[in-house]
Amino acid sequence: MREVAIAGVSMTDFGVSENTCVEMFCEAGIDALNKSKIEPKNIEALFVGNCLGDFEEGQSHIASHIHAALGLPMDSPAMRYENACATATIAVRQAALMVGAGVYDVVLAGGTERVAAMDTPLATRTFAMASNAGYSAPTGITFPGVFAMAAHMYADKYGIEIEELQKYMANVSVKNHYHASMNPKAQFQKEITVDKVLNSVMVADPLHFLDCCPFSDGASAVVIGTKQKVMEMTDKPVYIIGTGQAAGGPIINNPDMTRIKTREASVAQAYKEAGVKPSDIDLCELHDCFTIAEILAIECLGFYEFGKGYDAAQKGETRLGSKKTVINPSGGLKAKGHPIGATGAAQVTEIVEQLRGESGKRQVEGAKTGLVDTLGGEFGTVCNLILRSE
Amino acid sequence: MREVAIAGVSMTDFGVSENTCVEMFCEAGIDALNKSKIEPKNIEALFVGNCLGDFEEGQSHIASHIHAALGLPMDSPAMRYENACATATIAVRQAALMVGAGVYDVVLAGGTERVAAMDTPLATRTFAMASNAGYSAPTGITFPGVFAMAAHMYADKYGIEIEELQKYMANVSVKNHYHASMNPKAQFQKEITVDKVLNSVMVADPLHFLDCCPFSDGASAVVIGTKQKVMEMTDKPVYIIGTGQAAGGPIINNPDMTRIKTREASVAQAYKEAGVKPSDIDLCELHDCFTIAEILAIECLGFYEFGKGYDAAQKGETRLGSKKTVINPSGGLKAKGHPIGATGAAQVTEIVEQLRGESGKRQVEGAKTGLVDTLGGEFGTVCNLILRSE
Repeated sequence: MREVAIAGVSMTDFGVSENTCVEMFCEAGIDALNKSKIEPKNIEALFVGNCLGDFEEGQSHIASHIHAALGLPMDSPAMRYENACATATIAVRQAALMVGAGVYDVVLAGGTERVAAMDTPLATRTFAMASNAGYSAPTGITFPGVFAMAAHMYADKYGIEIEELQKYMANVSVKNHYHASMNPKAQFQKEITVDKVLNSVMVADPLHFLDCCPFSDGASAVVIGTKQKVMEMTDKPVYIIGTGQAAGGPIINNPDMTRIKTREASVAQAYKEAGVKPSDIDLCELHDCFTIAEILAIECLGFYEFGKGYDAAQKGETRLGSKKTVINPSGGLKAKGHPIGATGAAQVTEIVEQLRGESGKRQVEGAKTGLVDTLGGEFGTVCNLILRSE
Repeated sequence: MREVAIAGVSMTDFGVSENTCVEMFCEAGIDALNKSKIEPKNIEALFVGNCLGDFEEGQSHIASHIHAALGLPMDSPAMRYENACATATIAVRQAALMVGAGVYDVVLAGGTERVAAMDTPLATRTFAMASNAGYSAPTGITFPGVFAMAAHMYADKYGIEIEELQKYMANVSVKNHYHASMNPKAQFQKEITVDKVLNSVMVADPLHFLDCCPFSDGASAVVIGTKQKVMEMTDKPVYIIGTGQAAGGPIINNPDMTRIKTREASVAQAYKEAGVKPSDIDLCELHDCFTIAEILAIECLGFYEFGKGYDAAQKGETRLGSKKTVINPSGGLKAKGHPIGATGAAQVTEIVEQLRGESGKRQVEGAKTGLVDTLGGEFGTVCNLILRSE
């Protein structure tokens, strides 16, 4: 495999947009191309993540329409990927595998999503279609329910009072809002307090409203190429040194929700390929769709032993300035926002900017190696990428 | 690039099914694995095409659920592709590129689709989402309208009376129904006549009901691997010797609908890679979503000069037994059926079985080289594959 690197990265503001999925992707895509000093005519393939564009705005076949709007050459293929919340991470990974294997030299990858025209019940219902329609969905399960069960299972397994766990979880939210307060692209740039989380409305016991990430509009795009090509586009290449992906289907395949087997399988592939271990990771953008999800992830990714990660945020260990691995310096899904089909590419964008020292007030000092972690569905897809600057 | 070959292929009966998209894919997938004498645990990646499973049965994230239902190993990634009618062809092509480039040695690819729970207006409306939602869709255009316009443009350009063109088009339908009458998997295994086509209800002038392909349920799957791996699985390997893919977005990028630029771009890639020319192709499964579409395709793929293909079916040149390239020996989309996200893999299945001499009454004698052609949206995606037996 050839060395694969990232040139320009970009994301739209996350939040509520008046633009379509095509328009948002083009905003991020054109910016990423400009930063890479590359013209559309030189892009050899387009990898687009999108989950619910057909539901939200009546647009399927979106990769082809984005391709045309960007003015890419007709000979350059356009593919749409959909793998629940891990959609864009997978679009980026497939692009990287193709470049690494020699199919293409320079491609554009990313994702786009919009929920602006949906109310919360419709958004919740359509997002829940990523769970198993035949077996899980008929139980009435939605994702807040899945992660509420995971929180209860965690509390029970490790002998933590649920009220105590709620405080630990609240600290995750407070930390991620703090990080987002320094991120001009984030949906919520306002700090919150533990009390505010605990006093917010209950969504799915024990998860309060402020334990949950928002529905967001947004897009993100990255230019990926061979080392040689990327060296022509930027003097700060960031390398994709390891990737992983695993599939698990319905929740029954991950019966112990405190220890997600698909994530263990995926990140093990990435660590092995990269030749690094968890302690080598300076910062990680991970899938904090709910605060409990961040706690589960930091354990499963190897930053903490199982059952030992719950108080990491409270102790400040995952916060900017910590000497341990900084978790979600962007603000994470919780505060930066979570446009489903775009999230993975935005995680990549954050890591790349951090590794280039371009993250302003929220810069993780001396960051050299970063991990992307995205989870889809009821743990049915996990995708990881390890990035390193030279 | 390594040589890429196909081992087992399979498809469900096309028509109306009581099974879900997951179940249909598993039916075809297990059959393809069994024919390849390979166990699920040895499949390294899954490439699934599906267009509207979220609309039809509330199931997105379908690749992961199919992966689990098939019992593939957790380490093996599962990707869903959506590119309108070309969805499964692209899933197969991406799989072939990955195998050729050395990422995987053996994978499973295909597609699945179900419209059973939709009535015709809803199916028409949701399928039309593949056109450009911002510019084409607001004109009220649906796909019968697109191809009706193409038929008028063709008649006008080549000075053919529209009533005459209707008869030529009817002959395409008659020929494809004749082929399907010998295909036990086809949705319509009944022969029809030119009069029957011309007397069927008008759908979009000049296209009668029997000029239009049906909405279908079905799935198809193929096992793809390196030459070496496939030689262990079958003594009749079929090689993927050339592929192409092009993107064009909205209809405005193909203003002359008699000459589809995306198709010209895509098939030129495939011919070049394969080192063959149109006259080398013994049989072709192409995108006859409407009868006029077959006439446009046989010209664009190089079997006929532009403006000279309209009477090929009437003259019997594209019919089984002809010494020229046999077109749609399976019955095509028109009579075999068109489960959107599965169609490309079923086209591959037909060509592979033909090249192996396993097509029974509809066998194209001495077939060595076959072409797959699938068109998505308002000409916004075209994908081609050239297959050859040894």
